[in-house]
Amino acid sequence: MAGERETIPARRGRAVRLGAGEKLRLINTHGTQVVDTWAFNADDMAECMSMEHSRVAIGGVFPRPGDTMVTNKRRPILALVEDTSPGIHDTLIAACDRWRYILLGAGDDHDNCEDNLHAALAELDLKAPKTPSPWNMWMNIPVGEGGSVSFEPGVASPGDHVVLRAEMDLVLAFSCCPQDILPINGVACNPVDAAFERL
Amino acid sequence: MAGERETIPARRGRAVRLGAGEKLRLINTHGTQVVDTWAFNADDMAECMSMEHSRVAIGGVFPRPGDTMVTNKRRPILALVEDTSPGIHDTLIAACDRWRYILLGAGDDHDNCEDNLHAALAELDLKAPKTPSPWNMWMNIPVGEGGSVSFEPGVASPGDHVVLRAEMDLVLAFSCCPQDILPINGVACNPVDAAFERL
Repeated sequence: MAGERETIPARRGRAVRLGAGEKLRLINTHGTQVVDTWAFNADDMAECMSMEHSRVAIGGVFPRPGDTMVTNKRRPILALVEDTSPGIHDTLIAACDRWRYILLGAGDDHDNCEDNLHAALAELDLKAPKTPSPWNMWMNIPVGEGGSVSFEPGVASPGDHVVLRAEMDLVLAFSCCPQDILPINGVACNPVDAAFERL
Repeated sequence: MAGERETIPARRGRAVRLGAGEKLRLINTHGTQVVDTWAFNADDMAECMSMEHSRVAIGGVFPRPGDTMVTNKRRPILALVEDTSPGIHDTLIAACDRWRYILLGAGDDHDNCEDNLHAALAELDLKAPKTPSPWNMWMNIPVGEGGSVSFEPGVASPGDHVVLRAEMDLVLAFSCCPQDILPINGVACNPVDAAFERL
């Protein structure tokens, strides 16, 4: 329902349908949480928001207010219309997955954003044919000298939000990243919840 | 056959099987040509070299000699063991595709790297379930201040090569990028051939 605040539980995913032109406010409730974000054409789950195509469309690796992300068919799908945070959102890094946590020594049953995506879609009886590279909201991956990347704590404040606008009928999916080994969700390594409101 | 030089024709693709441990020399015959490069697990075409996972594995956006690219299951698939060029190879930008050229005003039948990938695989009776983001050999996409990206002419010299080593049984695919509107294949905007040799 419009205006109602819904929770994305810590370490879990949520998916939601938006019609073309509808807006959603995504809220970093605690300020420290990374929220992996995906979008799919509601009529064709094979068409999805694509980071590698969007970097061409927006001319960079960091989306800014006014930028519109595009699909793997280079069609506008999701616009960033407002951002109260310092604007650090990653487009370079894969969703964490089962294999990531095995490599980090955390075993093979650690919560992960890839599984969260597919579980959230399944709750809407939807299935994605692949795991697109996500738009990692509030994930602080600076690109340094010579193109190096590093995983740093976020720089948002509690309550910071972005407003996203659907540019087609779409399915949005979010995952509150359960990374608790690297400090990407804050130095406390404590994954927490986030929230959204349809506007 | 080992040592035999094979051509990747201008504006076209080629695919080749390599066993684990085998090496291949990819040659920028004219120095100006971008070669989009993909790798797939020979036993599972759904497992492919992934730029978004590889950037985590190599800690950056520009692969250097000694770096090993990984799959969407974070397994080593392709190592860069030698590079005589200045080492500018892109991991950020999608393969050019039908939609890219429509947007550039070049009509809907322009040669493109995405179609070249799938045609090259089809010649080996193989089918990829998606178009992974490519490793764009010799593609000069500098990341500037604030994360901006731009399309610049390459900086390789005629005959420059990279040596790649298969880290599993795999299928390599190449496309000599047919981009002739932007100067990514040199200021002459003249796509040309490249070559490879199994070692």
